[in-house]
Amino acid sequence: MKKIMNDPENIVSAFLDGLVAANNTLIQRLEGTDVIARRSLTSQKVGLVSGGGSGHEPAHAGYVGEGMLDAAVAGEVFTSPGADQFFAAIQAADQGKGVLLLIKNYNGDVMNGEMAQEMAEAEGVKTEMVIINDDVAVNDPEQRRGIAGTVLVQKITGAFAETGASLPDVKRVAEKAVSRIRSMSVALKPCTLPAVAQPSFDLSEDEMEVGIGIHGERGMERRDVATSEKTAQLLLEPILKEIPSEAPLAIMINGMGGTSLMEQHVFANDVMKQLDRDIQHTFVGDYMTSLDMAGVSLTLLALDEELSECLEAPARTVQWTQG
Amino acid sequence: MKKIMNDPENIVSAFLDGLVAANNTLIQRLEGTDVIARRSLTSQKVGLVSGGGSGHEPAHAGYVGEGMLDAAVAGEVFTSPGADQFFAAIQAADQGKGVLLLIKNYNGDVMNGEMAQEMAEAEGVKTEMVIINDDVAVNDPEQRRGIAGTVLVQKITGAFAETGASLPDVKRVAEKAVSRIRSMSVALKPCTLPAVAQPSFDLSEDEMEVGIGIHGERGMERRDVATSEKTAQLLLEPILKEIPSEAPLAIMINGMGGTSLMEQHVFANDVMKQLDRDIQHTFVGDYMTSLDMAGVSLTLLALDEELSECLEAPARTVQWTQG
Repeated sequence: MKKIMNDPENIVSAFLDGLVAANNTLIQRLEGTDVIARRSLTSQKVGLVSGGGSGHEPAHAGYVGEGMLDAAVAGEVFTSPGADQFFAAIQAADQGKGVLLLIKNYNGDVMNGEMAQEMAEAEGVKTEMVIINDDVAVNDPEQRRGIAGTVLVQKITGAFAETGASLPDVKRVAEKAVSRIRSMSVALKPCTLPAVAQPSFDLSEDEMEVGIGIHGERGMERRDVATSEKTAQLLLEPILKEIPSEAPLAIMINGMGGTSLMEQHVFANDVMKQLDRDIQHTFVGDYMTSLDMAGVSLTLLALDEELSECLEAPARTVQWTQG
Repeated sequence: MKKIMNDPENIVSAFLDGLVAANNTLIQRLEGTDVIARRSLTSQKVGLVSGGGSGHEPAHAGYVGEGMLDAAVAGEVFTSPGADQFFAAIQAADQGKGVLLLIKNYNGDVMNGEMAQEMAEAEGVKTEMVIINDDVAVNDPEQRRGIAGTVLVQKITGAFAETGASLPDVKRVAEKAVSRIRSMSVALKPCTLPAVAQPSFDLSEDEMEVGIGIHGERGMERRDVATSEKTAQLLLEPILKEIPSEAPLAIMINGMGGTSLMEQHVFANDVMKQLDRDIQHTFVGDYMTSLDMAGVSLTLLALDEELSECLEAPARTVQWTQG
């Protein structure tokens, strides 16, 4: 296991320092925390906070900025940040209209987010939480994990919050996006944690792991490696079952960190050829990774007019710039 | 060796189709070629063409668009495109003011580019070529390879061409950028070609390869794996020797395809801490890769006012959007 790093115990902090140093007109690190916040909050709007364990870069700190998040909390690698960190992010994001937390569906994140909400409410800051659970690899919706679809929910909710909408209205749009988005992933190679010398699981040269999460956990099923074409079919089938059949789509092909852009676009090509639908937006790249894992996730979002407008609205963050 | 692909012999073509399908308002593939061109040329300006072997994505097709390239030619993986492909790109980029080719310093690319120039001149299209050779790992400047610094040269030259400047003037700015830019790379893991089951070289778990190129070739030196801090020092030293000591800098930390953004930012942090200079722009990410190689390159560009303005100008391409 080789990585470009110094002390593995300090890798998240060094990452955050590097990110801020490279983008210091846009973002800042709140002193004494692992919270990245917008350098300036220019308008009175609902604050938007996200966060979770690190190892998924550019999520979430890379999406802090105009039109997306106001603050992002970085836990240790694959570990939920503490409630005090979420609380610091809420305080930084608060502009007087309340704060919405967008949290991926993991017990630790939800629990710490809720504790932070209590701390904020005690200080008079109104908060709400929307839980993202887009991963169809898990059958029970209650247990479903939040994966790459989270980034599209952040984009949409962030754009809507910029309009100055109220907290209940921003929450409504986030919940609508969550209800219409589904994802699934496949890995060809496991990831390796910075502080551990072993890959998170073993895969032989002719196997792939289907239905993986983003924390190096095993998937739902192990299969023979398939062509891009067949892999696209394999991920599309369970996703399409839960996507309204008439709506136009936004799709995201997300690299897991160790997958070349060439492969991601080959896969995108196969997905688009097999989807006999109106595809209005296609995003291809590393949006939510799992360290150096080789693999991809596929996300489909059923659009309506409101969601489309939010997706097309301007954004100025480290990793997502448009308009 | 596992990759997300179908027929490895067809991987470049499938990649180009996926890239265009995902970005069809911005770019098009010229029929019967591996050339990606802007969908619309809106102003009369010098045409800008780049290209070379594939495997370096998002270079070069990801940089076709407003403010950067007018057309990019994709060869097979790590293989120069033929002269006829470069010629097709020149024809597509020509808007009546001549065409500049930005070519990385590899024999095949230079030779095929020159042949394409002759074909174009025979058709009455004025052309020039600027050769990029930013890699200080090679001592002899004549033999120096073009690596990630190429992307900054494309950004700068593309912005300057948008001003409507003449071909000699656009060439002058490209040459100035080339004269003030230097890079060097290190690999922790080799890459694997799609059609070959073996890594391009072997590296043990405690070694790194210093001074690698972007085609899976061996580096200049093999060393024990070092910390990010020491690796930054190792790459900075030879680069700084050739960079004017007073000029403000733009720096690029480029991932080689299989390196997580977390590691890239850790490395960026160490580079910036060791550089006691005025750093005006820092770019961190996968700009010019070598398939799934793990490693980074470091690029320093000595700015002047003209180069700064070009770097800050708007760009709208698949992979570089600003302003």
